[in-house]
Amino acid sequence: MDNFIFENPTKIIFGKGQIARISKEIPAGAKVLITYGGGSAKRTGVLDEVKAALEGYELTEFGGIEPNPSYETLMKAIELVHKNQIDFLLAVGGGSVIDGTKFIAAGAVYEGDPWEILLRRGRGINKALPLGVVLTLPAAGSESNPRAVISRKSMNAKLSFYSTAVFPRFAVLDPTKTYTLPKQQISNGVVDAFMHVFEQYLTVPMEARLQDRFAEGILHTLIELGPVALEDPENYDVRANLMLCATMALNGLIAAGVPQDWSTHMVGHELTALYGIEHAATLAALAPAMLTVLKDKKRAKLLQYGERIWGITEGSEEERIAQAIAKTKEFFEIMQMKTNLRDHGLTPDNIPEILDSLRAHDMVRLGEHQDVTPEVVRQALELCF
Amino acid sequence: MDNFIFENPTKIIFGKGQIARISKEIPAGAKVLITYGGGSAKRTGVLDEVKAALEGYELTEFGGIEPNPSYETLMKAIELVHKNQIDFLLAVGGGSVIDGTKFIAAGAVYEGDPWEILLRRGRGINKALPLGVVLTLPAAGSESNPRAVISRKSMNAKLSFYSTAVFPRFAVLDPTKTYTLPKQQISNGVVDAFMHVFEQYLTVPMEARLQDRFAEGILHTLIELGPVALEDPENYDVRANLMLCATMALNGLIAAGVPQDWSTHMVGHELTALYGIEHAATLAALAPAMLTVLKDKKRAKLLQYGERIWGITEGSEEERIAQAIAKTKEFFEIMQMKTNLRDHGLTPDNIPEILDSLRAHDMVRLGEHQDVTPEVVRQALELCF
Repeated sequence: MDNFIFENPTKIIFGKGQIARISKEIPAGAKVLITYGGGSAKRTGVLDEVKAALEGYELTEFGGIEPNPSYETLMKAIELVHKNQIDFLLAVGGGSVIDGTKFIAAGAVYEGDPWEILLRRGRGINKALPLGVVLTLPAAGSESNPRAVISRKSMNAKLSFYSTAVFPRFAVLDPTKTYTLPKQQISNGVVDAFMHVFEQYLTVPMEARLQDRFAEGILHTLIELGPVALEDPENYDVRANLMLCATMALNGLIAAGVPQDWSTHMVGHELTALYGIEHAATLAALAPAMLTVLKDKKRAKLLQYGERIWGITEGSEEERIAQAIAKTKEFFEIMQMKTNLRDHGLTPDNIPEILDSLRAHDMVRLGEHQDVTPEVVRQALELCF
Repeated sequence: MDNFIFENPTKIIFGKGQIARISKEIPAGAKVLITYGGGSAKRTGVLDEVKAALEGYELTEFGGIEPNPSYETLMKAIELVHKNQIDFLLAVGGGSVIDGTKFIAAGAVYEGDPWEILLRRGRGINKALPLGVVLTLPAAGSESNPRAVISRKSMNAKLSFYSTAVFPRFAVLDPTKTYTLPKQQISNGVVDAFMHVFEQYLTVPMEARLQDRFAEGILHTLIELGPVALEDPENYDVRANLMLCATMALNGLIAAGVPQDWSTHMVGHELTALYGIEHAATLAALAPAMLTVLKDKKRAKLLQYGERIWGITEGSEEERIAQAIAKTKEFFEIMQMKTNLRDHGLTPDNIPEILDSLRAHDMVRLGEHQDVTPEVVRQALELCF
């Protein structure tokens, strides 16, 4: 096990009806900016519920934070923060709204051009406005981590930053708020959380046995309940477990003391940027192929995964690994995800531009061994058709 | 799944050599009181290592915090805090030293008689001196929770308190510092952590599937590695996993959204108070009997435990439950614990005074259903001989 530091101060306030208590978490008299996305928070009534819970506070609203939140949009929010002397931010939404709000929090108190926060990847950023979260879409895990990904349209850039200053102070996770999500968002969320686990778990054996068990616990739960969530949207316990899985998958717990991969995510980001394919959809299409190409380096963990998650104990190592990857693909298909890039309108002719894009973004040495080169990615992409 | 709030701000600084970085975690110029126990911190050199890491700070030492730390001792430490104008506490030791230091932290800034903190069980206590921990004995989990148990010899009282103000700011967990622990302490630590999991996991099904998986992950790891730790004391990864297990067993994670039992602990406390039997030893002797007596109420979870932890799938429910309890007892024996109270010098004649003691401390309705009466405990105690 490697040395590590694990720190996660976010207070998780979990369960039905918990929005009512957010006023206990925000200093009395604070001027609050409520941030949200494309309008579903308004349509579903969550925004009204939040505002009712904050009666007596001076509230300002900022809607329209888009998926893959943009610097341009967020700079307008920062202007509003200054104008209205905001001292607390409350993000109501999913990963994009929360990520965007983290940037607003850090940017509003940054001396200089906030773009530098991203250029520095957050290094040296140790102050931010306090922020809280009301989560409506379980997937990204941003509600309980110190990381955000921001896009700048004018530069065609997508950068992330990390600063413990932007850990949400609290996150309200009310599973009933996920009942109205479209099926596709549930599928995406389950696959996204599943792949967050994979990127931290499916590397090399590190004798981090407890972290492995926790990772496997999240996978088991996603596999058991993901399909049920599609069929039975108002099953409280199912939604509750999935919501908790998504948070635990990316709050630092299973990353403690182990190497991380993230190559599938990095290639996926290029597919999103080039073709507008949804994030989780890129992961579902890429992961089986990436695992196939990297199976020798991930051999021991693939065998462990196959045995513990899918009960695969028969056959040669090659056969067991092939079965484990096939079961993974099958699970994504059960979750109604497309697992062939052709189904997203791509052909093998697109491969060179994907690789060019990786090279242009300096994504040429990915993975836990930093040996996933564009050539390795090419082999994987060929298997995606 | 029940509603819950999960909050744990303690920064876990894990791994070999990490004591060297504690100065980064304590404000420059702080006057630090280093607290420790019976002298093993001195003998093993950990105390010197801590002092070397804090060169330049004004340091005061307070040793002699005993197992089951006493109010009388801790009040002397509080005096010292006032005299030397201490503004940061650093506990070097295991659960007793940490619990004691939490009381010092809250008591030093309490207006009134600090005993009231315990009488109020911590209610309303929202300030304390900041404290950090260098853990030398993995077992109690106190390094990363807001709870402490304090004894007052003169009143023959043992009370606990809870306040988020006494969450350690940081906890250094260096597995190499456990190499010199006597075997018995390792046995005790493994059994204590195991039983912490049981008290939160072996109740009734709550559809808290992820919490169940996490609890089972800790149990699996303790069962796999506990015996190895006894045979191979300097196996770093083994000690690392066990240390992490003990922390995760009682940091709030697996308690989220589920009922808790704690009846075995409560009865065990009486055995410690009456006969001086070590805490973990009381749990090892009591648990199989308590489970046997409570098996109908814990039926579903006992079956799940038997199947997932011990692979028990054959036989009637009664048989499977009996097997699961037998395997538990066998594990404690492999960990070199005594599982019969006769081996601690007791006989069935002691049972009435144990029950009297429970009644005297108002421990008459224990367990997740609050129906573990002294009569139920009597049935269990009879099975302990």
